[in-house]
Amino acid sequence: MDKKEAEVGALQNVEGKQEEEEQVVNPWEVSAKEGGKIDYDKLIEKFGCQRLNQSLIDRVEHLTSRRAHVFLRRGVFFAHRDFTEILDAYERGEKFYLYTGRGPSSEALHLGHLVPFMFTQYLQEVFKVPLVIQLTDDEKCLWKNLTVEESRRLARENAKDIIACGFDIRRTFIFSDFDYVGGAFYRNMIEVSKRVTCNQIVGIFGFVGEDHIGKYSFPPVQAAPSFPSSFPHLFSGKDNLRCLIPCAIDQDPYFRMTRDVAPRIGYHKPALIESLFFPALQGETGKMSASDPNSAIYVTDSEKEIKNKINKYAFSGGQDSVEKHRQLGANLEVDIPVKYLSFFLEDDAELGHVKEEYGAGRMLTGEVKQRLIEVLTKLVERHRRARAAVTDEMVDAFMAVRPLPNMFN
Amino acid sequence: MDKKEAEVGALQNVEGKQEEEEQVVNPWEVSAKEGGKIDYDKLIEKFGCQRLNQSLIDRVEHLTSRRAHVFLRRGVFFAHRDFTEILDAYERGEKFYLYTGRGPSSEALHLGHLVPFMFTQYLQEVFKVPLVIQLTDDEKCLWKNLTVEESRRLARENAKDIIACGFDIRRTFIFSDFDYVGGAFYRNMIEVSKRVTCNQIVGIFGFVGEDHIGKYSFPPVQAAPSFPSSFPHLFSGKDNLRCLIPCAIDQDPYFRMTRDVAPRIGYHKPALIESLFFPALQGETGKMSASDPNSAIYVTDSEKEIKNKINKYAFSGGQDSVEKHRQLGANLEVDIPVKYLSFFLEDDAELGHVKEEYGAGRMLTGEVKQRLIEVLTKLVERHRRARAAVTDEMVDAFMAVRPLPNMFN
Repeated sequence: MDKKEAEVGALQNVEGKQEEEEQVVNPWEVSAKEGGKIDYDKLIEKFGCQRLNQSLIDRVEHLTSRRAHVFLRRGVFFAHRDFTEILDAYERGEKFYLYTGRGPSSEALHLGHLVPFMFTQYLQEVFKVPLVIQLTDDEKCLWKNLTVEESRRLARENAKDIIACGFDIRRTFIFSDFDYVGGAFYRNMIEVSKRVTCNQIVGIFGFVGEDHIGKYSFPPVQAAPSFPSSFPHLFSGKDNLRCLIPCAIDQDPYFRMTRDVAPRIGYHKPALIESLFFPALQGETGKMSASDPNSAIYVTDSEKEIKNKINKYAFSGGQDSVEKHRQLGANLEVDIPVKYLSFFLEDDAELGHVKEEYGAGRMLTGEVKQRLIEVLTKLVERHRRARAAVTDEMVDAFMAVRPLPNMFN
Repeated sequence: MDKKEAEVGALQNVEGKQEEEEQVVNPWEVSAKEGGKIDYDKLIEKFGCQRLNQSLIDRVEHLTSRRAHVFLRRGVFFAHRDFTEILDAYERGEKFYLYTGRGPSSEALHLGHLVPFMFTQYLQEVFKVPLVIQLTDDEKCLWKNLTVEESRRLARENAKDIIACGFDIRRTFIFSDFDYVGGAFYRNMIEVSKRVTCNQIVGIFGFVGEDHIGKYSFPPVQAAPSFPSSFPHLFSGKDNLRCLIPCAIDQDPYFRMTRDVAPRIGYHKPALIESLFFPALQGETGKMSASDPNSAIYVTDSEKEIKNKINKYAFSGGQDSVEKHRQLGANLEVDIPVKYLSFFLEDDAELGHVKEEYGAGRMLTGEVKQRLIEVLTKLVERHRRARAAVTDEMVDAFMAVRPLPNMFN
């Protein structure tokens, strides 16, 4: 299917629950076909986005004069829309801005939540571009049983974790919808709202008549930051500035809708760079669930908790007995410790060594888990220290509606 | 039907177009049964509001120590919800605030547009209470084919006409949605949005699947000013303050919805005082239409235009020939000059005289029209002078987000 067709068809796709669906991927539900894994090839085909291939990664390395981020090298960010156009523009000397976000529904983030922020921090650093981070406290108030005040409190708490990922305050504006929506931003929400019908929203998101109108109203709120004019204090007079959105691929429906509307209101379509889902400890067929703290490693987990969770819950591709394992080797396709290491172990050579030895049965699950415990303990400890250093004043500073005079330098 | 039932049923009524409907009254369409007039008794019964009876009018006169406004005495404001509760509270020494609004879809206002503002100005003056006036430029951008900028410009132009009605700047805050929506106001929009389902909105407003989501999203925007917390610069810490909304009865669907939600989010239900529709020059069976400038008298019409429109278009209840008229008299039920005089001729005795003489055939249509021309020319001239005195600085002052320290004195 060519790209034009994919865009045109975007507003007709139904992503909601359907009995005949093999897998469900939308912003509120990610579930694989019974007993299987998410089929990302199918997702790319269905959503109409592109695979992020090696030549694009090479181009990023060339343009930034730096080794590509581990999440690029290892295919964590695996799909895109118009990322080529972003790189073309960048090569011509045009800048762009980054937009990512988070729905603040929980006190503490888990490792999966960190993935887009770690990657966005890298993009900001290597491309030297401004970044807006939307905290959709309104969304969480609408979808979860959270009060307005509790959603706002969680947004501020989550902002601390986000800041701890190392964003550059000279190039970063963090905002919560409950505080920032209004003015130019609200005007763009209306521009989008009047160009998407109820039937289209139902087609894209699968809402039903019993759903409250807050759900129907929300997609334009997530669309608005894709347009530079939503941030007059940053991008006044720069309506032509391109936007690149790093996100997990479950957010694609929002931006298919946004891309359909963008040219009709005079903006570039936002480009996307999209990641896989971070798997649950119990394996890729399971789901990380907020109601099961043992399904994920949280950035607040102690060393002991990390050790315990990995040893006890991390699904192993190793064999039942040492003898069998030595003979057959581990099944790396389903092994969670190896998956996690491929996200967070920076050293390609070491990762290759682990995979080879473990896959051949010369390394045991316990040894791989031990290495993962070390890697994650170090990561979580580093995050904890960084977060502890984030003061309320720093949160206020990142969230202040202010110009960023050196954001492109 | 008792009041409780009416409220409970509010979210189930269908006000949209239906073939079996005898008359259609919703915020976007007012049309009587073929060839007939709006049946206001039926409307009261269907909407579940109350008739504003003489004893309430007497009570207003008693409480305000002033003769009731001509729009009250003559039944222009003829229906209400909880107006008794407002008067009870006022009698106990509790204050309230007024909320009215306008969708700025045209450059110039006609006489019908002035009705709610003239009446609200009276209420503000006699009760000495604060007033918020919402200019729904977002609504007009969503419903009419207006750009954001054109809607905003019309909002400011209309604000001048509104200010010319004599509002007290010490007690009045005028705001446009495109400028003011955000913060506490947006948070209340979300509180409402999450408590109204799509099915309910369809039931109340008759939207269809082909309608854009801007329509589905808008009702909470018109609901939010009913809650004092939407105006923290005015009513901080006064969540218990009651709200009284003077409006034409076609706005009732918005506030039925609002009243259903209000107690669920901790506020009083807003009270309403509702008016008839101002008839078109061509008669009550016709519609005032923005596309037919001859269907209404505009505040920008010249003396000559007023004279011409009334003489040429004002539907007369007089007879075809002078002889027949002297014999049968005028049909006051359908006569537009008499209807218009009953809105704008202050002197009860003179109005009584005109009705008696004209109804008996002793006065001719030409004479009644001549008197109406005098009354309206004077009214329009007074408005024009008042509007010419409204500077841009005054508009800025009325629309400034500011405390009103003496608003209750």
